[in-house]
Amino acid sequence: MPPPAETLAARLKDIAAEVAIIGPQALAERHPGEHPGNFGAGVMALPTSTEMVAEIVRFCASEMIGVVPQGGRTGLVGGGISTPGELIVSTEKMTEIELIDPATRIAIVQAGVTLQALQEAAAPYGLTPGIDLAARGSATIAGMVSTNAGGILAFRNGVMRHQVLGLEAVLPDGTVFSDLTEVVKVSAGPDMKQMFIGAEGALGIVTRIVLRLETLRTARATALVGVKDAATALAVVGHFRSQPALMLEGAELMWAQFIRDSASVHGFDLGWLDEGTAAVLLFEVSAETAELAAETLESGLETLWEELGLDGGIVARSLDQSRKFWELREDSDFIYRLHPGAPSFDVSIPPGELDTYVVALAARLRTIDPAWGAYVYGHIADGNLHISVTGANELTDADKERIEDAVYAGIRGLGGSFSAEHGAGLEKRRAYIAYGNAERRALAQALKRAIDPDNLFNRGKVPY
Amino acid sequence: MPPPAETLAARLKDIAAEVAIIGPQALAERHPGEHPGNFGAGVMALPTSTEMVAEIVRFCASEMIGVVPQGGRTGLVGGGISTPGELIVSTEKMTEIELIDPATRIAIVQAGVTLQALQEAAAPYGLTPGIDLAARGSATIAGMVSTNAGGILAFRNGVMRHQVLGLEAVLPDGTVFSDLTEVVKVSAGPDMKQMFIGAEGALGIVTRIVLRLETLRTARATALVGVKDAATALAVVGHFRSQPALMLEGAELMWAQFIRDSASVHGFDLGWLDEGTAAVLLFEVSAETAELAAETLESGLETLWEELGLDGGIVARSLDQSRKFWELREDSDFIYRLHPGAPSFDVSIPPGELDTYVVALAARLRTIDPAWGAYVYGHIADGNLHISVTGANELTDADKERIEDAVYAGIRGLGGSFSAEHGAGLEKRRAYIAYGNAERRALAQALKRAIDPDNLFNRGKVPY
Repeated sequence: MPPPAETLAARLKDIAAEVAIIGPQALAERHPGEHPGNFGAGVMALPTSTEMVAEIVRFCASEMIGVVPQGGRTGLVGGGISTPGELIVSTEKMTEIELIDPATRIAIVQAGVTLQALQEAAAPYGLTPGIDLAARGSATIAGMVSTNAGGILAFRNGVMRHQVLGLEAVLPDGTVFSDLTEVVKVSAGPDMKQMFIGAEGALGIVTRIVLRLETLRTARATALVGVKDAATALAVVGHFRSQPALMLEGAELMWAQFIRDSASVHGFDLGWLDEGTAAVLLFEVSAETAELAAETLESGLETLWEELGLDGGIVARSLDQSRKFWELREDSDFIYRLHPGAPSFDVSIPPGELDTYVVALAARLRTIDPAWGAYVYGHIADGNLHISVTGANELTDADKERIEDAVYAGIRGLGGSFSAEHGAGLEKRRAYIAYGNAERRALAQALKRAIDPDNLFNRGKVPY
Repeated sequence: MPPPAETLAARLKDIAAEVAIIGPQALAERHPGEHPGNFGAGVMALPTSTEMVAEIVRFCASEMIGVVPQGGRTGLVGGGISTPGELIVSTEKMTEIELIDPATRIAIVQAGVTLQALQEAAAPYGLTPGIDLAARGSATIAGMVSTNAGGILAFRNGVMRHQVLGLEAVLPDGTVFSDLTEVVKVSAGPDMKQMFIGAEGALGIVTRIVLRLETLRTARATALVGVKDAATALAVVGHFRSQPALMLEGAELMWAQFIRDSASVHGFDLGWLDEGTAAVLLFEVSAETAELAAETLESGLETLWEELGLDGGIVARSLDQSRKFWELREDSDFIYRLHPGAPSFDVSIPPGELDTYVVALAARLRTIDPAWGAYVYGHIADGNLHISVTGANELTDADKERIEDAVYAGIRGLGGSFSAEHGAGLEKRRAYIAYGNAERRALAQALKRAIDPDNLFNRGKVPY
């Protein structure tokens, strides 16, 4: 029988007087984020330092109280859901950007710094975190570490794991693991900090992070181009990637149903696009000057036009127009307004296999129900697709499983993953077991047992 | 009492008839590589597939026979040393390049493929592994995975960990861990394949690897520039890195003692260099054309000349001349011809701290013995220094410890590492314990116990 949230809150106030503690009443007035179950525990600690997190965790370990770490609560798979008897440890008061060092090209931040806050702090130095994603305003750096976030630049810079040089984390027994390395080259035995990256809080609470920074390139040009398939989009991308004068800054593909509905919702004119086009590629390049970027982009598209049979295209004439292009792709909430409860997925497919996969997926959905279709869009250069299944109302559990199976079929055999960047949380539990890598899961369980034998951290989630 | 090597060889031939086995006599005729102790076990198995490795490892596990994996045997820290009673498992017959896929920009290779073989196989597709190092002709991909190799492009592309998308490994009990992911984005719980990267064979024998490939840029220009310190070199590097028309392909700094002796040994004229210069920066850029690269490089240097007070410079006029520049840096064997037994180190220092570190190191060495000095050279943009201490002949063990302490003092506090890319092996054991991260080591030991409870794999090495 867990102590009621009020009792736990009162006890925490006693043992950790300097830590802000919020009980069920104050929590009820706050927004729980992407999942209503996030505040299930009814009590939240808001420490401001690694040592405070450790103090709280030591208390929880001694009382066998489960701990659920939370960052921006923008996760889409229920990784932050908490239940009565547990304690939420929120990083929202850990927002210090401790260092931006232009000589070493690193940042040191506390867990709760948002991506956008770091982007804004690094920009005056001509630097940027090298990872970018639509939820930049709310996603925290530690949350991004815990889900090994990817976003729009992963094809070039890699994922969060590749930007993390060092981190500090509090282990389930309250000890502090501190590896605040500031260099990219370390060959000193097994690199245990890697274990906290993508572990969704199962092994430790990440409290501080050292990140590599990349050169910020603001002289850009942006285009929308109609293509007949992903292969054509990849050929366009490949053309521009191979030009040393340009740097590719984004390559997003939106299949027809997505771009048509998004354009309609955003009042965006698609008159320039051929009627029957299969998909629209949004891509952005940087160069020495914005003019050079735009010229190279336009002349490149001219060269490719006949060869690839492009279905129309436009180049942004202003920063404002470029923002509108990106809004079509990033402001995707319309999906849930038009199709409430549409089951959504986030898969990784080797880019060379995208067309086969997308065609097969549509066929599999139609076979189950001719009314079913899918919004498909995502980060084309690394093969990360976001998928929302439409036309499927009032779904039974069996329906949901059939949809999952249709989406995940064959992905592992292709070398892809059932989860690209959102994580597994609670909602992808079945997929993690059925479509994940069993050997990876078995080893992760062994590690979990070694580090968290009482299963106190983010219980019931990965590695299950 | 371990079985004699002959007996073990005979038994292995029985139980694994299809695997080549070499006994002590045949081994004696081969070159043991960088360390004479590599062939200490006196018996070697040369499997050609993951399944063969697993078969051999299962036999060893059942007999409690220790296993030492070996690749190119070019490791510099004794990570491949073996002792009587153990079995060497060599990957030298696992040289198949299974796939180069230009659409997905990946390669799948067997463990024993050399870096150079992969570079040559990828080049016709306009691709490259994105990691490069002087030992490219002998270093194997699995060896580079096992030491988390870095090299000359790590400042841009990261280290081996960042290029590995998937891998297969045989665990100490003979089970196969297979995670041949082909995509960069995977968020599916703790990523256990990371544990085999940089583990120096302590946790598994890496048998197959999926690697990201990068765009190969062959239109290049190369320069040598005299600088007064590392900060100046970094300012030069920063200038060229911030230019979108250029891509930095290498930035190596050689302090005076190194460049003077290397030039002398290689018959390279340094007449263009000011007498008192502290160091010479070798750097290379790529651009749309080699002409553009050379022009941009020359005009950039002109711009920087006064501002940074450069001490002379030359730009390569031909590919042949560029190769001679690189030979000065990469063909560093002269160190051991001029100073046999010179203690050598491979440290990571945050770039902004390099000058302070190099000055303090020289002072610490002189304090111990006025005759002692150091060759210092390395990958400046990521802060990886190679150091060989000179003037110290007939070293006692106490001398060696004093030198180690002088080299490693303060590195961890700076956010650096006692080992950047060579690993710990046997020779850096004391440093791993005294100057490594104790929390990282403790967690690594816990993992080692979970995966290899009988301590069969690369016994006596990391994580100790």
